[in-house]
Amino acid sequence: MTTKYLLQEEDMPRQWYNLAADLPTPMLPPLGPGGQPVEPHHLQAIFPENLIEQEMSTQRWIDIPDPIREILFRWRPTPLRRAVHLERYLQTPAKIFYKDESVSPAGSHKPNTAVAQAWYNREAGIRKLTTETGAGQWGSALGFACAILDMECKVYMVRISFDQKPFRRLMMETWGATCIASPSRETKAGRDVLERSPDTPGSLGIAISEAIEAAISDPEGKTRYSLGSVLNHVMLHQTIIGLEARKQLAMAGVKHPDVVIGCAGGGSNFAGLAFPFTCDKIHGASIRIIPVEPSSCPTLTRAPFAYDHGDTAGMTPLMPMHSLGHAFVPPPIHAGGLRYHGMAPLVSKAVVEGLMEPLSIHQSECYQAALTWARTEGFICAPETSHAIAATIRQARLAREEGRERNILFCYSGHGLMDLAGYEKFMRGQLVDHPLPEEDLLKSIEAFASFPKPQPA
Amino acid sequence: MTTKYLLQEEDMPRQWYNLAADLPTPMLPPLGPGGQPVEPHHLQAIFPENLIEQEMSTQRWIDIPDPIREILFRWRPTPLRRAVHLERYLQTPAKIFYKDESVSPAGSHKPNTAVAQAWYNREAGIRKLTTETGAGQWGSALGFACAILDMECKVYMVRISFDQKPFRRLMMETWGATCIASPSRETKAGRDVLERSPDTPGSLGIAISEAIEAAISDPEGKTRYSLGSVLNHVMLHQTIIGLEARKQLAMAGVKHPDVVIGCAGGGSNFAGLAFPFTCDKIHGASIRIIPVEPSSCPTLTRAPFAYDHGDTAGMTPLMPMHSLGHAFVPPPIHAGGLRYHGMAPLVSKAVVEGLMEPLSIHQSECYQAALTWARTEGFICAPETSHAIAATIRQARLAREEGRERNILFCYSGHGLMDLAGYEKFMRGQLVDHPLPEEDLLKSIEAFASFPKPQPA
Repeated sequence: MTTKYLLQEEDMPRQWYNLAADLPTPMLPPLGPGGQPVEPHHLQAIFPENLIEQEMSTQRWIDIPDPIREILFRWRPTPLRRAVHLERYLQTPAKIFYKDESVSPAGSHKPNTAVAQAWYNREAGIRKLTTETGAGQWGSALGFACAILDMECKVYMVRISFDQKPFRRLMMETWGATCIASPSRETKAGRDVLERSPDTPGSLGIAISEAIEAAISDPEGKTRYSLGSVLNHVMLHQTIIGLEARKQLAMAGVKHPDVVIGCAGGGSNFAGLAFPFTCDKIHGASIRIIPVEPSSCPTLTRAPFAYDHGDTAGMTPLMPMHSLGHAFVPPPIHAGGLRYHGMAPLVSKAVVEGLMEPLSIHQSECYQAALTWARTEGFICAPETSHAIAATIRQARLAREEGRERNILFCYSGHGLMDLAGYEKFMRGQLVDHPLPEEDLLKSIEAFASFPKPQPA
Repeated sequence: MTTKYLLQEEDMPRQWYNLAADLPTPMLPPLGPGGQPVEPHHLQAIFPENLIEQEMSTQRWIDIPDPIREILFRWRPTPLRRAVHLERYLQTPAKIFYKDESVSPAGSHKPNTAVAQAWYNREAGIRKLTTETGAGQWGSALGFACAILDMECKVYMVRISFDQKPFRRLMMETWGATCIASPSRETKAGRDVLERSPDTPGSLGIAISEAIEAAISDPEGKTRYSLGSVLNHVMLHQTIIGLEARKQLAMAGVKHPDVVIGCAGGGSNFAGLAFPFTCDKIHGASIRIIPVEPSSCPTLTRAPFAYDHGDTAGMTPLMPMHSLGHAFVPPPIHAGGLRYHGMAPLVSKAVVEGLMEPLSIHQSECYQAALTWARTEGFICAPETSHAIAATIRQARLAREEGRERNILFCYSGHGLMDLAGYEKFMRGQLVDHPLPEEDLLKSIEAFASFPKPQPA
């Protein structure tokens, strides 16, 4: 039985797919501090013009430049695999396919956009990128991309991760990136925080502020900021995942999957896999599309669709998205990549349009799924990815109960080799779940109560 | 330009290749305590009969059972890639191909034999395997194999690694294996050591003794011992690497490579890639075959070919191999998998026959090669693998100096994501080399001065 569907390099997509072109109603614009729609020139100190253009584009197909394709060839096209061993273990009539994005140099889907962003910046004459990183997945992906494109890279890493998780930092340094603990003394934002709280563990919000400040204060203007999720152009770059998967499913004789699943933090791996199939659904295909998030950070499942800031400090424009409130501090779950208060506006919009069915799952069920996966399929998944596997197992069991064949496709967004501490806690029985009480949610979403409300188009 | 050569599952080899069938003169037998050749029944308390048969076989081709092939399909056939970015960086006319064994669930070539050994043991009615591990590469590979085959697995891990490197241990536990620090109180061998030296950091020699004792003392006789390198059947299982590579080179239009390179500790990844090409060389092809070892553990380059024990404690039969002496304690280089005093007898024999040209390189040159690799090709290699890359870079530079095209093939035996501490030391300028003084070597090889000497056939 064939369990791997491999594409040749010449079969790799030559265009990215932009869901904004096919949504039933148009996207709402991001808003500036005064409530007015953001204009491209407002963003030029932070992003290069070519990426701002992509961010605002409603063109359906956007060419992937050949030099980007050539870099992606290092690990793309990625395999589509069938999880026959998990199927047998679950005694399900469902066929489980997964798109394996763990095979990239950084071990996740993140380099798909890191490479594209670095390349566009370099085309625009930029020599250096700054970014923030939590546990280090995104920082290492951007470090890799900058190494390959011979650019400088500076990563502001949340201090507690910087101290406790040296290995992702060492990956970045191996690729020649500079990684410093945030808050740092190198930026005003960092110094301000350190004066108030010298022993702060740091936060993503502070690190974003530092990275943006470092980008806009380069006197030569050769530095820009790079973000690993949430934005439209990031989703765009990730659609190569789903476009490849669609070709590979055809090789397996599957016209379209019945269920598409991905974990969703900022939304990028989920969108990357799901958006091409969302297009099929808009055009009539019957597909359930399920973004899966942690029950302790239930953005799509419990938060309202609102205008809110993308960062804790309120430095970004207001974006139309589901949000738990920009000041929301998620509990310390191990899936660090899913601890984000907001959601990619394109994903939120698709949910509002009824194209997707969000689901939240507690981390203990996810780790159980990860162990089942490791002991059947053999690979060790990232804690983020375990959410997609847990949802897949639920769907496969449902198929067994209903006695129905079903083609399930999920995104295997990354391996877990740098994230084994959570496995240890689970195996020792020390892992706890963190339900979000209704009163905490209500208090948290007050943060955007005074902001403009999204209006239907 | 094509940079990946992919095989379909049906193209995966159906037989392993046994170099013993083609060597110009026959292999010398292992010897028992009294100096007499070891008979199969001497080994039956340690290994199952089917593997003992493979160990002693001189049959050229041995069928790979279908259930083993099906397990290998989880990650095999592995890609053959061309390192075009390194080629450009080195401005070499050479073509550099590498066989990527890092894509397995355990991240190295080790599962190729772990799966086969676990399967043959289970066929023989064995329910549990014991083994030793140093840094954890082999223990995690066997843990993976036992998870897939639903067998028990117990790994004795050298205490200093057990304490300092928790992540490989967590991989084993994720796959359901039991991993305990050696010396332990569970075996007589362990207790004896602990009584003499309660604070010992442990050693591979002690861990082997404990694993063998645990296997042979199972009152139900359902436990056996498993070794990850050195033995003939291990080399046999690894030849799938070179057999695949040969097919993939043909896809690239290369009849046979001019140079074949692999790092060599016990010899298994090197043999796996090189033996099929060694066969071609025996039959007239012009191929340089280069095993690469650390200058601080220079088994093939500086040690004599002799009869010596495979373990420090002297529990194994005497094996005909290059040996630095079974009591040799290698310096603490980061390539833990290359810190072995001996060498696979099949590799040693091929060197004695003049079929291979061993090379030793210091670890600082290897880490420099690893950084160059990460910043050109993009992947982070294991410290062991960096020895093969350093030798490849030397060959590519030689090709440039001579202005000659050359096809170089090396084994990318594993990734370095669990081994970043060595990179950190190198980048901080804290890495030191450990030359082996001649007088230390002479003292160390006294360990086998009184043993029988290998006689030509």
